[in-house]
Amino acid sequence: MPIGGAGARGRQRAALSRLAHEKSVDSTLGKLLDELEPYAATLPYDSNEASLIRVAKRDFERAIKVPSDHVARASAFGAESYEAWKRARPANDFATMLPFLQRGIDLGREYADFFAPYHHVADPLIDDADEGMTAASVRRLFAALRADLVPMVDSITEQSAADDRCLHGYFGESAQLAFCLSVIKRIGYDFQRGRLDKTVHPFCTRLSAGDVRITTRVFENDLTQALFSSLHEAGHALYEQSVDPVLEGTPLGRGASVGAHESQSRLWENVVGRSRGFWEYFYPLLQRTFPGQFDRVRLDTFYRAINKVERSLIRTEADEVTYNLHIMLRFELELKMLEGTLRPKDLPEAWRAGMDSYVGVVPSDDRDGCLQDVHWFSGIMGGGFQSYTIGNILSAQFYAAAIKANPNIPQEIAAGEFGTLHAWLRENLYRQGRKFKPSELVRRVTGEQMNTDPYLSYLRAKYADRIQA
Amino acid sequence: MPIGGAGARGRQRAALSRLAHEKSVDSTLGKLLDELEPYAATLPYDSNEASLIRVAKRDFERAIKVPSDHVARASAFGAESYEAWKRARPANDFATMLPFLQRGIDLGREYADFFAPYHHVADPLIDDADEGMTAASVRRLFAALRADLVPMVDSITEQSAADDRCLHGYFGESAQLAFCLSVIKRIGYDFQRGRLDKTVHPFCTRLSAGDVRITTRVFENDLTQALFSSLHEAGHALYEQSVDPVLEGTPLGRGASVGAHESQSRLWENVVGRSRGFWEYFYPLLQRTFPGQFDRVRLDTFYRAINKVERSLIRTEADEVTYNLHIMLRFELELKMLEGTLRPKDLPEAWRAGMDSYVGVVPSDDRDGCLQDVHWFSGIMGGGFQSYTIGNILSAQFYAAAIKANPNIPQEIAAGEFGTLHAWLRENLYRQGRKFKPSELVRRVTGEQMNTDPYLSYLRAKYADRIQA
Repeated sequence: MPIGGAGARGRQRAALSRLAHEKSVDSTLGKLLDELEPYAATLPYDSNEASLIRVAKRDFERAIKVPSDHVARASAFGAESYEAWKRARPANDFATMLPFLQRGIDLGREYADFFAPYHHVADPLIDDADEGMTAASVRRLFAALRADLVPMVDSITEQSAADDRCLHGYFGESAQLAFCLSVIKRIGYDFQRGRLDKTVHPFCTRLSAGDVRITTRVFENDLTQALFSSLHEAGHALYEQSVDPVLEGTPLGRGASVGAHESQSRLWENVVGRSRGFWEYFYPLLQRTFPGQFDRVRLDTFYRAINKVERSLIRTEADEVTYNLHIMLRFELELKMLEGTLRPKDLPEAWRAGMDSYVGVVPSDDRDGCLQDVHWFSGIMGGGFQSYTIGNILSAQFYAAAIKANPNIPQEIAAGEFGTLHAWLRENLYRQGRKFKPSELVRRVTGEQMNTDPYLSYLRAKYADRIQA
Repeated sequence: MPIGGAGARGRQRAALSRLAHEKSVDSTLGKLLDELEPYAATLPYDSNEASLIRVAKRDFERAIKVPSDHVARASAFGAESYEAWKRARPANDFATMLPFLQRGIDLGREYADFFAPYHHVADPLIDDADEGMTAASVRRLFAALRADLVPMVDSITEQSAADDRCLHGYFGESAQLAFCLSVIKRIGYDFQRGRLDKTVHPFCTRLSAGDVRITTRVFENDLTQALFSSLHEAGHALYEQSVDPVLEGTPLGRGASVGAHESQSRLWENVVGRSRGFWEYFYPLLQRTFPGQFDRVRLDTFYRAINKVERSLIRTEADEVTYNLHIMLRFELELKMLEGTLRPKDLPEAWRAGMDSYVGVVPSDDRDGCLQDVHWFSGIMGGGFQSYTIGNILSAQFYAAAIKANPNIPQEIAAGEFGTLHAWLRENLYRQGRKFKPSELVRRVTGEQMNTDPYLSYLRAKYADRIQA
């Protein structure tokens, strides 16, 4: 979007948000849903009809607590704050963002108060993204995970880091894009119902079930950006493209939660896309795509390079092992800002102290510090970070369940065949849309509650040769 | 858009059209406008406030005649028909489009009947695009113009056609796009409030006053497509980018009529962009953009090539002299289909007979015949073609007025300076937005009624050396 378009875009989004919200809280809708409840009670819990009535009712009861005016203000504020952040981050200008940060916190508290009483002010915001989770339950989950991750990071980083020079030559844009296209096509992304474009920040957007687009960005001196962001967004898109078509146009016709969604982007990006088997198939194709550049690079060297672990400053570029520590820091700071125990003006200092404690490196400026993520600077504060780690945890848990059902999947992947995995995820996870709460969904798909064991086992197996016993 | 997105896009457009229409016919709005009329009467006619009340009232009275249901049906039908046409035209498949054609005609009659009584069934449709014009007034205008154009075409095409081989070498896409960018930037298109992208069919779209985007298409074996479609769309965009910012967000904040808009796309594409002076400045740049390819082509040869006149099949590729004959044929057929004096199934035959009579060539299939334009196959039939010729007529009339006020403009153009022309058009035409009816606007800007004299003088002067006395 040209810079001159931002103001009107903000007003347009606010108007549409308000309109959509007004329709979603129409009292006629509430009455119709009340009338349908006895009928729903006669249907199987997991039928489409019962699920639709149940979820629509829950959405309605949530929506009527929020005034349309708040929705429109939050939307307009989000657009305005985002435009300011786009300029302030490269300028390392935290001072400009301070009043926006404060307003985001105020809006977060205002939003939470519509759902009072609550245990923690962040609970309603967390529940919006990952239904059923709370500040307390996320804190418990994160504390347990951190206890295992910190020694794992210590152990891996005590040794010399992997050599990733092979990823930093010159890789022409069109060749990179062609390679990304063939990879995501191969894993099952449907180009009849989507497309891949370039943007500054990669994303996946669902215009309808028949139009789920993804974007990527290309750095000609870094092979990993376009490739893994394409795989990440394709993971989101596989989910949206595979929701049961009969759910299209209903509140059930999309992914179950932010965390469940992130589990699929991370499953395809990391669990599959950074696996050795995946590259047994794709590495020869990569070598042909960039003639000469990988002639002397062994598959094993390449595999270690794309899985290099190091303490670093930028969340979106962090490896699988340290990534969650970045999230935990953000989650804690977010809770404190919402509680009022951390003043916005003290954020940069708290960030540096937290990075030192969680990740073990400290940024020299705010650009690579507390200004790096858009989340706190593009709308309501709160509930925006825990989903990434929930997604990582679930990515391994879902994948383990898929392997248990089809032990042949790893060999198929090494042969470039993704049909069994894709079909299993589609049947068990994707096609359900929003019929079930995340906790119900996890139990149905995996037979267990969400837990960190599969994820930790996955990391331990992957880095077995680098973790000291 | 991926093909899978069309269905939902159609439903979304229909929903938004219906919503927008419902708001525009709210009786509260009507009452408020009634209450404001006495106040408007105390204000100068050309004040923003009086104009806003006057135009909003006229829009309201027009809108309340059309049921929301019709708006939604027409919108959904338009999307569906367009998707069918995209496939049917390359397949030369008129039979598939016949029922769509019939429904478009039915919808056109249905729409017209909301405005009964009328002299001609096409009058309400023409009035929507070019307020104040009717089937009868357009027919009179066209008959007069045709009487002069036909002998002009005869006279020019009796001689051997211009040699345009220099336009049909190989011209790389990125070099063409870079050239287009520098040309439209130079004439004044504001990239802070717009951007240029590639699409199958070029267009200009206004998302807001601060975001007026244009598209083009590039043929690597034809230099003229990208260049002149960029200039054409940039002409539309200059108009929209220059409407007085205080009118933004009101019914006045866009161009005055379809014909007035087309006058600006044609002014910049043809009157300016195909003039000799324009190329005195840009030809050396073009030569540098395509090294070696124009070394032996004299400016005069190039100028004649881009102004080649010939009897041809495709409207959008027709030269300035024959172009209006294509429009006149379509306008006549459209009136007859709406009247019921031409049955849709007889359209291909009527097209061939008409092409023979108006242009002097006959297509061998419907793909290059009656299926070539999207207009009859993407929504309500009627009112869609006359604006092009009105635009041509006005392009010369507005330009003549600009030259009269600033006789130095042609010399400035030859020096690559477009500021005086752009500023004059902005002050006199663009910034007025929709404050005035087209007829009022033409009189204010040129001091005269719309008339064909400046346009015919322009063509006679341009082709003086090829028209036999």
